[in-house]
Amino acid sequence: MTNKSNLAVINESGFPAERLEYSEALRLTELEIRKLLKTAPLLIRRQTSHLARAKGKGLRAQALLACAMGGDGLVGHGAVNAAAAIELLHLATLIHDDIIDNADIRRGISALHVKFGEKTAVLCGDYLFCLAFELVSAIPSREINMDKVDRILPSYFTEICLGEIREFSNVGNLDLSEREYFRIILGKTAALFQASFHVGFLLSDDPPEVRDIYIEIGKHLGVMFQLVDDCLDFISSEKKVKKPVLTDFRQGVITLPLIYALQVDKTLRSKLEKGIAEQELKDAVIAAGGIEYSKTKIEEYRLKAKKRIYSLESESKRDRLELLLEKACTL
Amino acid sequence: MTNKSNLAVINESGFPAERLEYSEALRLTELEIRKLLKTAPLLIRRQTSHLARAKGKGLRAQALLACAMGGDGLVGHGAVNAAAAIELLHLATLIHDDIIDNADIRRGISALHVKFGEKTAVLCGDYLFCLAFELVSAIPSREINMDKVDRILPSYFTEICLGEIREFSNVGNLDLSEREYFRIILGKTAALFQASFHVGFLLSDDPPEVRDIYIEIGKHLGVMFQLVDDCLDFISSEKKVKKPVLTDFRQGVITLPLIYALQVDKTLRSKLEKGIAEQELKDAVIAAGGIEYSKTKIEEYRLKAKKRIYSLESESKRDRLELLLEKACTL
Repeated sequence: MTNKSNLAVINESGFPAERLEYSEALRLTELEIRKLLKTAPLLIRRQTSHLARAKGKGLRAQALLACAMGGDGLVGHGAVNAAAAIELLHLATLIHDDIIDNADIRRGISALHVKFGEKTAVLCGDYLFCLAFELVSAIPSREINMDKVDRILPSYFTEICLGEIREFSNVGNLDLSEREYFRIILGKTAALFQASFHVGFLLSDDPPEVRDIYIEIGKHLGVMFQLVDDCLDFISSEKKVKKPVLTDFRQGVITLPLIYALQVDKTLRSKLEKGIAEQELKDAVIAAGGIEYSKTKIEEYRLKAKKRIYSLESESKRDRLELLLEKACTL
Repeated sequence: MTNKSNLAVINESGFPAERLEYSEALRLTELEIRKLLKTAPLLIRRQTSHLARAKGKGLRAQALLACAMGGDGLVGHGAVNAAAAIELLHLATLIHDDIIDNADIRRGISALHVKFGEKTAVLCGDYLFCLAFELVSAIPSREINMDKVDRILPSYFTEICLGEIREFSNVGNLDLSEREYFRIILGKTAALFQASFHVGFLLSDDPPEVRDIYIEIGKHLGVMFQLVDDCLDFISSEKKVKKPVLTDFRQGVITLPLIYALQVDKTLRSKLEKGIAEQELKDAVIAAGGIEYSKTKIEEYRLKAKKRIYSLESESKRDRLELLLEKACTL
């Protein structure tokens, strides 16, 4: 089905007709992102080039590409653009997010608003947002029950945005419930993973009835990923996570390990209100079982995702997604 | 072609099949915007309700609806959604813009970032942006040479964003050239008018070959509108423009009346650098002919727009657009 000499054949949508191996598609996606960041209009190139210096994990792009694999085990060029768009949208939300959270470091480099000021960061986030939508709007996608790549994305972005707003409106709220915490991460993190899986499905040749399986895997993987990230904020070293640890806490973002610890250790709340040393906080959260409890939740979501991955038809796709699942849940 | 009893008939896209008079469509657009702002998720409703208290001029919605008129002189329900989306996108850019410009007052009420903080304003702008894209993605539109409503919007938004960045990067730049000034306003203002005209055209039944006429009218009208706004900043009273006058200047935004005055009055620059009373600045700009010169430019763009409006087929559309043109250039 693939034909290397076909590279120059362009189909009617303007995309090359050749289909790609997963690893080649991933390489092209990374190249495309770097190219877009490094060739942005001069006005904003200093900022986007700064962003290009850091490398994200690219989990969302990998998820999208894996899902987009057809029965031939290959993906089309449209998927490369979609994967690049998803990562750019992710970058745009990170930039605005860092303004909201007053974060200093992102992906091991200065956060954009620290280096260039908040105003430029607002505009740069907006620019990447627009750029991503431009990329997406050109992707040819099949239409299934009114679902099309460019039609489904905006509502996922609304979800992300509401997740961010929900998080921000709970800054410093030591009464944040576990339930509300999950609502926050379903929006701010899981929605983009759902979008990646949903878009990937639309670009695959899987039948309409398996759509919801993809979206569910995205949701579970996204929640799991955020849980892992929230644990790392308490237990990892700065070098490993490429950002300062205990950032969430310092920014007033209350996450599951702390929510659980507050329930178990009744002395913790007043300590927090009076001011607590960072090491003491870490120790208290671990001693109260906040990390252990979060790990059971991670395992729960990992198994949910795994079960649904197993129900997919293609073996190579299952393998690829399982690998991604393991990568995302490494503590 | 229209049939009042048809209200309940829904066409395959989920939109009512009934076609609307222009004034009815405009009324529905305003209702739709207010409804969307007032029924936003609870999390953000305080902010969006605040926005709903102020009324914009709605010029972009009016332009879109006028352009969308078919041979029957009526517009479809899709145009109402598109017009609402354009106004919401406009609102989103205003919110981020006010953060960038440190503006205090917008449309006669407190700017959002002043009332609720910058972080909330960033998120609220993002939310409205998403909401607008959601609205647009559901609109059925014909496809002409790869142009479709949801496909063309992202690139216009990139233009707006770059215009804002260009403006911001020239804050306080007394050497700003007239040429660069026009590049700024082509992006930050004219691009959204172009989008309104382009989308309106796609929702009309005009033939493909007149597309560029619509886009050109949008460009000229948008540039003219911004020139008028920039003059008003020097000559109007606060009550009339519903925002403080000389705001641009106080924010370091250099506009045509001042650019011209700086060229004519060679003493003005050092006065500005030393600090100048507001009334003295106004008087100097007027005395140097900055307003008169800008008025000749306004007239130039008005005539360019008018000429192209005359080349449109439908008389009722011509009348409607001419009315809009006169409204937009009232100093």
